[in-house]
Amino acid sequence: MNKSVSVRWLAVDWGTSNLRLWAMDEWHQVIDHKSSDQGMSTLTSDQYEKVLLSLISDWLPATGTLPVVICGMAGARQGWLEAPYRPTPTPLTKLAQAAVEPSVLDTRLKVSILPGLCQMELDSQDVMRGEETQILGAMQQQKLSSGLFCLPGTHSKWVVVEHDQVRNFSTSMTGELFQLLSHQSVLRFSMTGKWSDQAFVSAVSETYEAPAQLMARLFSVRSRTLLSEPETGEMDARLSGLLIGAELSGQRHILQKNEPVYLIGSDFHNHLYQQALVSLGFSATALDSEQMTLAGLRAAGASLIGVSYD
Amino acid sequence: MNKSVSVRWLAVDWGTSNLRLWAMDEWHQVIDHKSSDQGMSTLTSDQYEKVLLSLISDWLPATGTLPVVICGMAGARQGWLEAPYRPTPTPLTKLAQAAVEPSVLDTRLKVSILPGLCQMELDSQDVMRGEETQILGAMQQQKLSSGLFCLPGTHSKWVVVEHDQVRNFSTSMTGELFQLLSHQSVLRFSMTGKWSDQAFVSAVSETYEAPAQLMARLFSVRSRTLLSEPETGEMDARLSGLLIGAELSGQRHILQKNEPVYLIGSDFHNHLYQQALVSLGFSATALDSEQMTLAGLRAAGASLIGVSYD
Repeated sequence: MNKSVSVRWLAVDWGTSNLRLWAMDEWHQVIDHKSSDQGMSTLTSDQYEKVLLSLISDWLPATGTLPVVICGMAGARQGWLEAPYRPTPTPLTKLAQAAVEPSVLDTRLKVSILPGLCQMELDSQDVMRGEETQILGAMQQQKLSSGLFCLPGTHSKWVVVEHDQVRNFSTSMTGELFQLLSHQSVLRFSMTGKWSDQAFVSAVSETYEAPAQLMARLFSVRSRTLLSEPETGEMDARLSGLLIGAELSGQRHILQKNEPVYLIGSDFHNHLYQQALVSLGFSATALDSEQMTLAGLRAAGASLIGVSYD
Repeated sequence: MNKSVSVRWLAVDWGTSNLRLWAMDEWHQVIDHKSSDQGMSTLTSDQYEKVLLSLISDWLPATGTLPVVICGMAGARQGWLEAPYRPTPTPLTKLAQAAVEPSVLDTRLKVSILPGLCQMELDSQDVMRGEETQILGAMQQQKLSSGLFCLPGTHSKWVVVEHDQVRNFSTSMTGELFQLLSHQSVLRFSMTGKWSDQAFVSAVSETYEAPAQLMARLFSVRSRTLLSEPETGEMDARLSGLLIGAELSGQRHILQKNEPVYLIGSDFHNHLYQQALVSLGFSATALDSEQMTLAGLRAAGASLIGVSYD
């Protein structure tokens, strides 16, 4: 950290199991960063301020207050202070206006927690918390006002943005299903920890074209191992491909051949989903999820703090 | 046990975690029965004979040999002796002819292990071991030569029989998915252990009509709990219904409005699947799985032992 540059505000991504903190200067550039495993699931609401202070002692100003802008699960009901979900359609550029401010004992802190989004229509009720900030970041960074976003992972989110507003979104439990099936179901006996690209794209196509067959195809991962000797890595890739193909099939109505899907995920997930989408004739632009979180916090922070954002 | 009637042969269902034994008289009627938790998963191949002898000491004849007819996982590769899968199409009435006979130390025993079935076509590779005996039993008991069978449970089997032959079958991991999702995924927080019939049939219809939406609908179990206060039992039933609806959608090509589905399962599973099928306009005949196992072993035993089967 360059001590000659003073910390103007803090950007914080406070998730379920981890938190990441960035010290920002007055031009909204990162001058230092930290991380911790004191995520939401390890804390009661009265512990957040102490944890925050213990992590940022060398960033605190001698005088005045330090704005702290937080996204993620710290705003959940079981977090620091609930930042109620904003219902869709929601203009992302106004997320910061809906932030909640938990009361603090240390008056040098001014904490704002950004809200998540919800969709209330009965047939498509859904929630997100944290992803909205990443999408805001991607829109700023890519200079977009509309687009189709996919945030792959444990719970993949598919998000349609039009004119800076989240129109609708849905969540697939793809990553969690893969973890459960590959580690805890009878399919675990077929997993090698290896990989085959060809088996992956072939399985993606199977369930993309015939999603009704997903339930029956999953067991084929086991049957094929019993009846033949599949190539190493084929079954890991097949299981992943069957699940992702079914997920993509459920998004068929919003996928378009001439518009890229903006993927916001880890390198691993982005690569996997890009490969799946390209194999089906779509295109994808991969964006790093941590960078998008930071970009989103920067945009929200700039609007909250009232310093012009460049 | 009526000691005045002598044991002519034994029928044994030797599964992964349990075994059930029935002592049969010369007219193939049950005169005694036992069960044990020494299933396949607890045994090495050299332990089966000892376990069997320890359980049937009071059934052993003074002279001569006792035929023992076994179905289930004792015939798996990791069981007593592998009874190789018979490929479809397979005449069920000839299962017994393909039985394998493990060598035994005690010459009073003559053991036959019935084979499972396999389907080798690349796009529909599948296996069963034990269910084929239940279907044979159902066909005998219901005096059928053709029919559509569903054996619901951890791994549901759908089996098409024509002219006494298994034409094709497929396996859905529905029960195992329900267990994993309701106990180990984020959806576990929405489970109450209670039930709502209405929520069940409504969810069945959702994924039966739109199977591509399964991946996105599963998460609704969580979202709805976060966004509203569902009736008690609604979410347990919704999760179960979403999975069973998707399973049934995958069988749409073999379901017929004017032909019943023969369900072979526990009372619990039979009731659930019957309710789902009826809500979609189909009909179902429920048969008890243990009774069908016994009926199938009886049919196989009668043909093996060469006593006329009434």
